Amino acid sequence: MATLVTGLRCLVCGATHAHKNILTCPKCGEQGILDVEYDFDCLAARFTQTRRDSLQRDIWRYCDFLPVSSDVPLPPLHIGWTPIYDVPRLAKAVGISKLFLKDDGRNPTNSFKDRASAVGVMKAREFSFDTIACASTGNAASSLAGLSAAIGLKSYIFVPQRAPEPKVTQLLIFGATVMRVQGTYEQAFDLCTQACEEFGWYNRSSGINPFLVEGKKTAGLEIAEQFGKNIPDWVVVSVGDGCTIGGIGKGLQEMKRPGVLDRVPRLLGVQAEGAKPVLEAFKSRKDLVPTGTNTVADSIAVGTPRNWRRAIQQVKASTGDMIAVSDEEILDAMRLTARLGGVFGEPAGVAGVAGLKKAISTGIVKPDESAVVVITGNGLKDIQSAKQAAGQAIDIEPKLEALQRALRK
Amino acid sequence: MATLVTGLRCLVCGATHAHKNILTCPKCGEQGILDVEYDFDCLAARFTQTRRDSLQRDIWRYCDFLPVSSDVPLPPLHIGWTPIYDVPRLAKAVGISKLFLKDDGRNPTNSFKDRASAVGVMKAREFSFDTIACASTGNAASSLAGLSAAIGLKSYIFVPQRAPEPKVTQLLIFGATVMRVQGTYEQAFDLCTQACEEFGWYNRSSGINPFLVEGKKTAGLEIAEQFGKNIPDWVVVSVGDGCTIGGIGKGLQEMKRPGVLDRVPRLLGVQAEGAKPVLEAFKSRKDLVPTGTNTVADSIAVGTPRNWRRAIQQVKASTGDMIAVSDEEILDAMRLTARLGGVFGEPAGVAGVAGLKKAISTGIVKPDESAVVVITGNGLKDIQSAKQAAGQAIDIEPKLEALQRALRK
Repeated sequence: MATLVTGLRCLVCGATHAHKNILTCPKCGEQGILDVEYDFDCLAARFTQTRRDSLQRDIWRYCDFLPVSSDVPLPPLHIGWTPIYDVPRLAKAVGISKLFLKDDGRNPTNSFKDRASAVGVMKAREFSFDTIACASTGNAASSLAGLSAAIGLKSYIFVPQRAPEPKVTQLLIFGATVMRVQGTYEQAFDLCTQACEEFGWYNRSSGINPFLVEGKKTAGLEIAEQFGKNIPDWVVVSVGDGCTIGGIGKGLQEMKRPGVLDRVPRLLGVQAEGAKPVLEAFKSRKDLVPTGTNTVADSIAVGTPRNWRRAIQQVKASTGDMIAVSDEEILDAMRLTARLGGVFGEPAGVAGVAGLKKAISTGIVKPDESAVVVITGNGLKDIQSAKQAAGQAIDIEPKLEALQRALRK
Repeated sequence: MATLVTGLRCLVCGATHAHKNILTCPKCGEQGILDVEYDFDCLAARFTQTRRDSLQRDIWRYCDFLPVSSDVPLPPLHIGWTPIYDVPRLAKAVGISKLFLKDDGRNPTNSFKDRASAVGVMKAREFSFDTIACASTGNAASSLAGLSAAIGLKSYIFVPQRAPEPKVTQLLIFGATVMRVQGTYEQAFDLCTQACEEFGWYNRSSGINPFLVEGKKTAGLEIAEQFGKNIPDWVVVSVGDGCTIGGIGKGLQEMKRPGVLDRVPRLLGVQAEGAKPVLEAFKSRKDLVPTGTNTVADSIAVGTPRNWRRAIQQVKASTGDMIAVSDEEILDAMRLTARLGGVFGEPAGVAGVAGLKKAISTGIVKPDESAVVVITGNGLKDIQSAKQAAGQAIDIEPKLEALQRALRK
């Protein structure tokens, strides 16, 4: 079936452009993030209950909602349709009546970013590129490396110096060429953009590529379908570049048209205290001012977010809110989420749990409301942070008496 | 519905015991591994095509095949029904006409062992224990910690000194009390057994606990259902303690009765050169002689396997074979599997790919046959090994000229 994409609309000037290989609005330059638009009448007619029952349970059930061509083979990895868990003990600890976790660390390369990379490699193929590149603090990179390996596309990855070793190793094992840039994420991002222009590579950087956020949208589509009319009051998402919460918000909104949702839940965007420019722009109602970054949650340590407009638009459209949490609160959430929810998330992955707890204590979220937190990455991706949160093993000799002594302590 | 378990049969003396809280055969002692038996007439009558279509897609679709009580609530985590990928580029590199990977690193704590732990925590609850313990080289431990956290059971874990840090961190974050035993896996195992007797903890050690292997069996049941009549010629599994391949073999056999399979595929058991006592016993047709262990594949580094009889029985029942691979071959398989299959497995997780490649070159497996390899754990669990296999990132300054120089090299 033909794609239902009708065009690409600039989030700054509102101009619409044809669906083709462009990154940002030609009129507004790099600030002009583009949003993919669809024929929603046709989409709603296609996405009927009968048809839904027969669709596969991964992100490709949403092909009609995505800018992908049916001429390009789908990547073989199983992406999305990640599990949702009801976690009453964690709900109690956080102070809310009903809490769910959606574990997106269960994706093939263990993060939410696989949703975006899957669409990225499809677009690279559609536009006849044989090489794809991205700049990333880590997860988008490992994800792109994994998806590229799965379909046989060459990948170049630009990572900032502080990217955690497990993430770098993960992308090297997938055969990506990895450039560790002696500088910040922003410098890695700029170098990647230049390199794509210079060498004719496809640019997957999700901050600006208009198609990537559509992949992220699938998490919102899924949340809507998985809960249906029982959708919680709040959907809680950690915020770095802004495209994850922007994509999830878009997906939730789009599920009103086929009648899957009556109402869109409120979005709670959670940033780290040490990197909260989107929160500042949201509160001040002014344009974003870039900041430095200082947080244990490397996946949301973005000082110059590209997709802040989309994030703020979606939070406002949902009558949602934003909040920031300290590293200490994040590490505490890491323990709580693992011990009471059975899910081991990386720092950015559990920042939503920390943010929800804080939002309840400050009155933004009411204790009798319900929420789902999207866990965006697996804790194995950042063992150094986990170690800070986890505590210590007890060293003992292999003797029962040694164990008895240790237990008495 | 009532459980279909009819009793527990000793793999050594053949005596049958009632289904209750026992670990090994009272007559044969620790060698007397018990096998759970079922009412297969009743089971086959229940497991009809119509009923299968409506069953959930995780290990609990096989409740009738498992020794679990319907009075005990199921753990909330989504376990099993892991994806199977067709990997033609990897098939070519390995030298076989058709190759599939079943990615069991996609389980909640990122390894195959979640299948066993899920049944373990259910049995602990059923037998009214509030504490569960195990000895493990790592994966069974993290898995038990995660499953215990998910249902609120207290857990004590005994790990050998060499357990990789990511695995230890993973179980600490889940709130387990971790005893790092200054000695080998075997010493950790013995201390755990003593501690369970002394303190009244439930013993999850899968080498001897008869119920754990039933959880592992679900991978065999799934492979049978996922492929159906198109089941490949070979199912390839890495072998440490023997219960993984033993469980998978049992699951495949059990799928003949409800008519899901016509024939059971041949099992290829793969050990590491540095820890291959099961292979030696298989080849010599004599009782197992314990060995030392020296391999990068820590999850199958078992010198005193407890379930070797079950492993050998299942390999023979399937007219299968066994083979050993070097660490170098394992690291090579780690690269190949990631780069050509898009799956990042830990060393023991990809040992099957290495074993299959070798089995083709030695004529055990024919190039025109088909195979599925079970990837038993995610590569993020052992980053140190992955680093040996992965190669290096290229450090560059954040300048296009620096990139151009690096690319010319």
